[in-house]
Amino acid sequence: MSGKPNILFIMCDQLRWDYLSCAGHPHLHTPNIDRLAAGGVRFDRAFVQSPMCGPSRMSFYTGRYVGSHGATYNKFPIKVGEPNLGDHLRALGMRTVLVGKTHMKADAEGMARLGIDPESEIGVRVAECGFEPWERDDGLHPDGPYDPDPAYDAYLRAQGYNDPNPWQNIANSAEGDDGEILSGWLLKNSNLPARIREEDSETPYMTRRAIDFMEAAGGHPWCVHLSYIKPHWPYIVPAPYHAMYGPEHFLPVNRSDRELEDQHPLLAAYRKHRVSRAFSRDEVRDVVLAGYMGLIKQIDDQMGVLMDYLERSGQAGNTVVVFTSDHGDYLGDHWLGEKEMMHEESVRIPLIIRDPRPEADASRGTVSAALVEAIDLAPTFVEMAGGAPLGHVLEGRSLGPLLRGESGDTSFRDYAISEYDYSMREARTMLGLSHRDSRIWMIREQRWKYVYCEGMRPMLWDLDADPGEHIDLGADPAYHGVRDRMQAALFAWLRRPSQRTTVPDAAFDPPATHGDELAAGILIGYWDEADVIEERERHAKMAADRVRQQEETDP
Amino acid sequence: MSGKPNILFIMCDQLRWDYLSCAGHPHLHTPNIDRLAAGGVRFDRAFVQSPMCGPSRMSFYTGRYVGSHGATYNKFPIKVGEPNLGDHLRALGMRTVLVGKTHMKADAEGMARLGIDPESEIGVRVAECGFEPWERDDGLHPDGPYDPDPAYDAYLRAQGYNDPNPWQNIANSAEGDDGEILSGWLLKNSNLPARIREEDSETPYMTRRAIDFMEAAGGHPWCVHLSYIKPHWPYIVPAPYHAMYGPEHFLPVNRSDRELEDQHPLLAAYRKHRVSRAFSRDEVRDVVLAGYMGLIKQIDDQMGVLMDYLERSGQAGNTVVVFTSDHGDYLGDHWLGEKEMMHEESVRIPLIIRDPRPEADASRGTVSAALVEAIDLAPTFVEMAGGAPLGHVLEGRSLGPLLRGESGDTSFRDYAISEYDYSMREARTMLGLSHRDSRIWMIREQRWKYVYCEGMRPMLWDLDADPGEHIDLGADPAYHGVRDRMQAALFAWLRRPSQRTTVPDAAFDPPATHGDELAAGILIGYWDEADVIEERERHAKMAADRVRQQEETDP
Repeated sequence: MSGKPNILFIMCDQLRWDYLSCAGHPHLHTPNIDRLAAGGVRFDRAFVQSPMCGPSRMSFYTGRYVGSHGATYNKFPIKVGEPNLGDHLRALGMRTVLVGKTHMKADAEGMARLGIDPESEIGVRVAECGFEPWERDDGLHPDGPYDPDPAYDAYLRAQGYNDPNPWQNIANSAEGDDGEILSGWLLKNSNLPARIREEDSETPYMTRRAIDFMEAAGGHPWCVHLSYIKPHWPYIVPAPYHAMYGPEHFLPVNRSDRELEDQHPLLAAYRKHRVSRAFSRDEVRDVVLAGYMGLIKQIDDQMGVLMDYLERSGQAGNTVVVFTSDHGDYLGDHWLGEKEMMHEESVRIPLIIRDPRPEADASRGTVSAALVEAIDLAPTFVEMAGGAPLGHVLEGRSLGPLLRGESGDTSFRDYAISEYDYSMREARTMLGLSHRDSRIWMIREQRWKYVYCEGMRPMLWDLDADPGEHIDLGADPAYHGVRDRMQAALFAWLRRPSQRTTVPDAAFDPPATHGDELAAGILIGYWDEADVIEERERHAKMAADRVRQQEETDP
Repeated sequence: MSGKPNILFIMCDQLRWDYLSCAGHPHLHTPNIDRLAAGGVRFDRAFVQSPMCGPSRMSFYTGRYVGSHGATYNKFPIKVGEPNLGDHLRALGMRTVLVGKTHMKADAEGMARLGIDPESEIGVRVAECGFEPWERDDGLHPDGPYDPDPAYDAYLRAQGYNDPNPWQNIANSAEGDDGEILSGWLLKNSNLPARIREEDSETPYMTRRAIDFMEAAGGHPWCVHLSYIKPHWPYIVPAPYHAMYGPEHFLPVNRSDRELEDQHPLLAAYRKHRVSRAFSRDEVRDVVLAGYMGLIKQIDDQMGVLMDYLERSGQAGNTVVVFTSDHGDYLGDHWLGEKEMMHEESVRIPLIIRDPRPEADASRGTVSAALVEAIDLAPTFVEMAGGAPLGHVLEGRSLGPLLRGESGDTSFRDYAISEYDYSMREARTMLGLSHRDSRIWMIREQRWKYVYCEGMRPMLWDLDADPGEHIDLGADPAYHGVRDRMQAALFAWLRRPSQRTTVPDAAFDPPATHGDELAAGILIGYWDEADVIEERERHAKMAADRVRQQEETDP
C-alpha cells in the first residue's frame, strides 16, 4: 500500500455554490455534504475559470487557464499536446480514472497529424483528457448527433426498461395520466417524477459505477473523477425527490428592476436569450427549482452512500474527498438563465476538501474565504501524490498550505480570473461582433469584481456595498480609479508566460552567468586567449563562492 | 507537374537588414541579392518575432507569435502538438525539406507522453519542427555537448581534412605562421582566412546540398528551407573573402554618448555583457566586421550559384525565391553586441521575395515600406500552395496582396510585434528579476517604437525625428500620451485568442442562432411544446431568409 492517499474527485454539473445547507441554504438540507465540510475545509470563495462546462472542465483537468489551453467553448477540442492531470498523476504512480462526464472533445486532426491511433491506449487517454475511462457519459443523449447508446442505456435495458432511447424517454421524462411521455426537456414538467425507479436514475448509477472501480482497484493508488451529470438540465428527478420542494423553499430571486436600467449591452443581449426570458417568469422558476433542488437532494443522499462505502471498506482514512461543480446556474437571478456571465450565481462554485491525514487537522471543519480557482485542484492533487510543483505547466496553486493551516486566506491570492468566449452564442449575433472579439474576462478581488468586455465598456460591482451585484459601476465616473487598477491587473495577467511549458522552473536556478556557454565551448565576445582565461577564472571564483555559501547555510 | 510554384526559402543567420547594397550599403556590393530584389519585392520594414535564433525561427516555422508557441529561448523545446509550416504544406501536397539550421529542440517529454517514437517518420518530422531533414546542421560543433559529428564533418574528412573536429579546427579556424591553430571563436582572428578551401566551407557546401535536393526532387512540388549558418559567429571566412573589407568599408558605428546618460536599466545591464563591452571597442569592430562582411559577400556569390542553377535547370519560372534572416547583429551599435534588444540593428531583417508568376508583375522591382513580420511567410506560402487561410492557427498575414499590388503599404499592418525572454541571460541575474518577469515586448509603428519592459519603465523612440534611436523617450513626461497608446496596443494584442487553434474560422459562420442545438434535440429554456413549435418556425424563417439573400447576391 502506497503512502499517498487516494483522491475521490467528485464534480456535479451546474450546482450553484449556495444550494447547500452548509453554504447557508435554509431549506435545502444536505447533511451528507455538510458532514464532508465538517470533516474538511469548505472553500467559500471558489471560482471556475469559465462559466461553461467544456472550458471550465478543461481548466480543472489541465490546471491551466482557458486562455492557455485554448478550449474556450463546448466541443472546441483541446490541443493534442496539452498536458493534463492524468499525465501528471500517472507519472507519480496513480491511476486516474473517469466515471461520468468530462465534456471532452478530442483533437482528432492533431492526433492524426501526430500519428496517434484513437484506439490505442494512449489514443484513448488523449481523447479523454488524460483519464482512463471506466465509464464515460457526458449526460446528453437525445435523438440526434449525440452518443446514441451510452452504457447507461444498456444498463436500463437490462433492468427491463424497453425504449429506443431510455436515457431520454425513461430517465429524463415524466408520464401523463394516459401514459403519454412528458419530456424532461420542457421546463413545465420539471416538478413531475421521472418515469424510472430512483435507484436506476443517473446519480445512483454513477455512484455505483465509482464504487465498482474502487472495489476493483486493489491496492493501486488512484484518483477517481466521479463526475455527475446532474443537477444539470434536463431538470427532472424521480420520486420521491420531485415532490420535496416548492416555492416556499427557494432562495428569493436575486434580481431588481434597477438592473434593467442602463444595462450593459452584453447583459442586455443575454437577457434576450430564450432561456433568460423563460427563467425571468416566476411560473417557470416555481416549477423548475423544485426539480433542481430535488436533484441536489438526491446527490446529497448519494454522498451518504459513498461516504458510508468509504468508511465500511476501510478507505476513508486514506482517501481525500473533493466535492465541487463545474459552474453555477442563474435560475432567473439577474433576469438570466443558465450560466456564461460573471455574476456569483454563475462563476462561484461549491468546493469542499476533506483530507483525512493528520497534517490537515489544523483546518478541519473550517470555512476558507481565500480566493480559490478551479485550476488549484491539479497542483493540490500533484502535491498530495508526492510530486514536485510543476509551476511551468500548472497555473493554479496547491491548496495544501490552506489545508495545513500554513497560509492565511487573504494572502493566498489577490484576485480570481474567469474567462468566457461567447462566439457561438446568439448574443454575439445580436451584437454583430467578430468571433475573435466576443470574449470577456473577470477579475474578482475580495471586494471588487471587474469584467473586461472586448469592444464594450467594462462591468464593475462593489461586493461589499452590493453583494447581490445589482449596481453595475462599470460606467460610473466615480470608479475610474478602481477600473484602471483592475484593468492593470488583467494586463499583468495576460503577460504571464503561459506557453513556456517545456522548461521547468529549476532550469532557471541558479540564474545565468553564461558559464554554461563557456563550458560548452561557445565563446561569445572574447577578443583573445587572455579574455578566455579571465572569464574562466571569474566563473571558477563564482562556483567556489556558491559552494562556500552552500556550506555556510547547510553545514 | 503541379500548378503550384516551388518555394526556395533561404535564411541567413544574424544578417542585418542594412548590410546589402540593395538596402543601401555603400561598400558591400551584393549584386546577386540585388538582382533578386530587382526581380521581386524588397520588404524594407520586416521584423522578427524575437531577436534570437530559436524563438525567431520557431515563429517563422509555425507562423505564430513567440508568446503563442512558447519556445521563448534557444533550446526551449517547442510543444509537441504545435502545428507548423511543414504540416500545412504537406497537407497541400508539398514536400517541406530542411537543408541547414533550424535551432529546433524537440519536446522529448511530450513525444514520450504521446507515444511518438523519435525514430519514426512522424517522430523525425516532429523533432525537426515539421521539416523533412535532407541535411540538418545547426552550425555549432565545438568540442562539447553539441552535435559532435555532423554530416559536414564527414564531408570534410572525405575531402582529406584530417582533424578530430574539422568544423572547429578547419572550417572555423585560421592558422599562424608556425601552423598553429588560431580559433575563429576569438574575435581577434576574424580577419584571417579560415584554413579551408573556399568551396569546402559551410556556405558553398549548404548551397550544393540544396541543389542536390532540387535535383533529386523530380516533379514533386517542394518547399526547401535552405538555412545558412553564416554570417553568424564564429566570424571567420576563407580566402579571398577575409581580405575584401576594412574599416573604410564599414557603416559608421551607430552610437552616441547620449545613449549612456540616464540609460534604461535593461540596456545598462546588456551593455555590461562581455560581448557588448568587446564590440564597444573600435579595435574589435575593425577586425570582426571584415570577417562579417566577407561572410555576407560569400553568401551573395552563392546566391549567384543558386540563381544560375534555377535558370539553367529551367526551374526559375516555377520557383518562388525568398531571402531573409533570423535576426540582426548590433556589431557595437548602441554600445551593444549580438542581438536580443529591440533596436533596428537587432530586430529588423532583410526580406526579399521573388515570385516569378505573372500575378506578381505589378510589384516587381519595388520596395515595400509595409510593416511585415516573420510570421507572414507561413500564410504566404500556404496561399502560394493553394491552401485556404488558416486564420485560427497562423497569426501572420499573407504577403500575397502586397506581391500582387492589391494592398497599400501603410494599410497592411498598424504595428509589428517582437518579444524577448532574457531569463537565461546574465542581464537577468544583474537585475535580480524572476525568470517569469525577465521579458520585453516591442510595438513598432511606422513612426514610434515602444518597448514594454516587465518590472521597469518602457523604452520609446521617435523614428521620424531620431532614426538612429539615440534618444529614449521612455521616461519623458511629454510623451505620456504616445506611451499610453502603445501600451493599449500591447494590451489589445495580448487579448488575441492565440490558443483557440482547433476551431477553423468557418465554424463561426453563419453566426449562431442556437438553431443547431434545437436541431440536435437540446432544448434549453423551453417551457412547453408551443415554445418548441414557435422556435422551429423562427429558425425555418431565418433559414429561408438566408437562402433568399444568397439567391439575390449570387443568382
